[in-house]
Amino acid sequence: MDLSPEAAHQLDATDELAAFRDRFVPITDPNVVAYLDGNSLGRPLRATAERLRDLVAEEWGSRLIRSWEERWLALPEQIGDELGRVALGAAPGQTIVADSTSVCLYKTLRAAVALRPGRDEIVTDTANFPTDRFLVESVAAELGLTLRWIETDPLTGVRAEDVAAVTGPRTAAVVLSHVDYRSAAVADLAAVTRLVHERGGLVVWDLCHSVGVLPVGLDAAGADFAVGCTYKFLNAGPGAPAFLYVNARHHEAFGQPITGWMGAADTFAMAPTYVPAPGIRRALSGTPPVLGMVGVQEGVALLAEAGIDRVRAKAVALGRWVLALADEWLVPLGFTIASPRDDDRRGGHVTLRHPDAERLSRVLIENGVLIDFRRPDGIRVGLSPLTTGFAEVRQAMARVRQLAG
Amino acid sequence: MDLSPEAAHQLDATDELAAFRDRFVPITDPNVVAYLDGNSLGRPLRATAERLRDLVAEEWGSRLIRSWEERWLALPEQIGDELGRVALGAAPGQTIVADSTSVCLYKTLRAAVALRPGRDEIVTDTANFPTDRFLVESVAAELGLTLRWIETDPLTGVRAEDVAAVTGPRTAAVVLSHVDYRSAAVADLAAVTRLVHERGGLVVWDLCHSVGVLPVGLDAAGADFAVGCTYKFLNAGPGAPAFLYVNARHHEAFGQPITGWMGAADTFAMAPTYVPAPGIRRALSGTPPVLGMVGVQEGVALLAEAGIDRVRAKAVALGRWVLALADEWLVPLGFTIASPRDDDRRGGHVTLRHPDAERLSRVLIENGVLIDFRRPDGIRVGLSPLTTGFAEVRQAMARVRQLAG
Repeated sequence: MDLSPEAAHQLDATDELAAFRDRFVPITDPNVVAYLDGNSLGRPLRATAERLRDLVAEEWGSRLIRSWEERWLALPEQIGDELGRVALGAAPGQTIVADSTSVCLYKTLRAAVALRPGRDEIVTDTANFPTDRFLVESVAAELGLTLRWIETDPLTGVRAEDVAAVTGPRTAAVVLSHVDYRSAAVADLAAVTRLVHERGGLVVWDLCHSVGVLPVGLDAAGADFAVGCTYKFLNAGPGAPAFLYVNARHHEAFGQPITGWMGAADTFAMAPTYVPAPGIRRALSGTPPVLGMVGVQEGVALLAEAGIDRVRAKAVALGRWVLALADEWLVPLGFTIASPRDDDRRGGHVTLRHPDAERLSRVLIENGVLIDFRRPDGIRVGLSPLTTGFAEVRQAMARVRQLAG
Repeated sequence: MDLSPEAAHQLDATDELAAFRDRFVPITDPNVVAYLDGNSLGRPLRATAERLRDLVAEEWGSRLIRSWEERWLALPEQIGDELGRVALGAAPGQTIVADSTSVCLYKTLRAAVALRPGRDEIVTDTANFPTDRFLVESVAAELGLTLRWIETDPLTGVRAEDVAAVTGPRTAAVVLSHVDYRSAAVADLAAVTRLVHERGGLVVWDLCHSVGVLPVGLDAAGADFAVGCTYKFLNAGPGAPAFLYVNARHHEAFGQPITGWMGAADTFAMAPTYVPAPGIRRALSGTPPVLGMVGVQEGVALLAEAGIDRVRAKAVALGRWVLALADEWLVPLGFTIASPRDDDRRGGHVTLRHPDAERLSRVLIENGVLIDFRRPDGIRVGLSPLTTGFAEVRQAMARVRQLAG
């Protein structure tokens, strides 16, 4: 592969999504060489900045309380539907935007287990994201379930055969990440879902590292539940609300313990007893966080414009580019590649390992190459197709070579 | 009481807090006569609008991911401490800003019950806000506890003797609202807490309708837990994050089931097992909602400047003014007063009842008098001391008289 500056320039010149970069608030810090952390915190859209201004002045400042009925109460479902259509492969009425990923995961996991009475095992994998593992532990402990671990190699991600080894007639629910947060390995969501279903269990998918960077196909896979965050590839903002998907076939029996007024059939009835809303709305609890939701709405709208397939294609191309540069420049310096080389099995980031990664990450960040350090020795290079450029990546990798050399 | 326009003018002219009104984003809708819903959705501060602009452009847009370590991760505790100092009478380290009130209430209630093993009753009152009642029901059901109801007259609010009647050696936790959402009746937080403690139980206070409009005095009362929202008298914005108070004496034993990474001792250790953070941070779950937090921070800062005692004094004066106007103008038209007349027992709103309240509320809102309708027959007149003026209230009441006459 030609790794010259001209080659990078050529890749940017023929990039169909290059123009989307101008839709984002410019980085004014002159020291930033490359922002390779969009897989952790996506950059703000100009449209989000404008919407926030209007929201404060008009919707909140002048329509005041009337905006709840006029606009805001509908947002969790409205944005959820659009997110489902654009990013998740989910028909309307199955996705809502609410809470944090942790809270959404807790609710869906509790609901999933309740749908499989008599089964006493809950399953996750050793490579799963800490919040997921912690919550599975907590739910297992509070419900007296046995927690069974899938031993996963982060480099391959969770595989159907690994899941097969620990699931069976006692499995109530399995909690897995679609894309591994360290290696970016992509799990076969459809195959794993099918396998668990054959054994009578349910699956809760954590889409944090896949949503917005690769097509998910929840309905096509017959998925049960999914949760995910919106502040990574959806660029919705720091701590923006999460989302939660419940397949329509589970709606009627879906029950979750945080029974706040927004999940009730008639929120303003101030009824004596909780009656859950029909459909996905019953997964809501408290008052929707409107400011954060605006970022989700704009992020999803931009993704709709770009198209998830084009975004995926560019993520693959960026990944290949990083791998080629790393093989040529960094592997000789002691780096190893800790992400799948197979394009189909790699999400939106590439992880490089190096014995001195912690110190090196600090130096890189001081030198304007914003990457992510993940203990013990991983440097995550995040590739956010709507904002990341090929020349930008090349410059960053050149800086890594220089500083690690 | 002199109810003339001149008297209203005089009250505004001598109002020490009148100038604070200019600190808010102006209402540009020319049809708005009076905004009497600040007890439901407070108005935006100019400072919040500015902070959001800076946040998007600088903290998020240019410092990017670095802002988490530089600023954002500290916000839940930092704003919590300030909120505790200014509004709650809570020493630092006991209050955090997070989630929604529903989620905070769920967590604290679960934690409270776990602190009283062997006790199998949970108590709330029939007049409590729906979310509170729904959540108490849900937690009772999932833990197999008996739910006991205090029969409360909304007009008096919950009284210590009512609590005494249904609490005893089996009481694990009592969930009550400090200020009744319908009548604005203020409960004796200290006396009720003392009484429940004498019986060995714990109390979770919902401060939604008191925080920011009257001093709460949690530490002085020896309170156990409290939760509340910030979008009412704290003007933090639609769906802004809630807060949660845990008295320091309960920290070590405090456990809650939504064990997300932000509540772990070392968030970025990606540890194999959840170890709760020391102190109040263990009550956190997911990633802090930064955009919403900015509104809380600014709302609390403005309250600090005004002083909760001056705010309280003005709330009392505004309440008296509404009562005087209602007695003179509206009671003859079939209205009744559904809030305490005793200043010490009334929070930041006054509720008027009328058989035709639902239709009348609609007409009032169409005519620019923004009040709140609460089924079956209540019109809530919200008095937000930092934005509400005496002439504004008079105009609104005149309009009610005209439209109901």
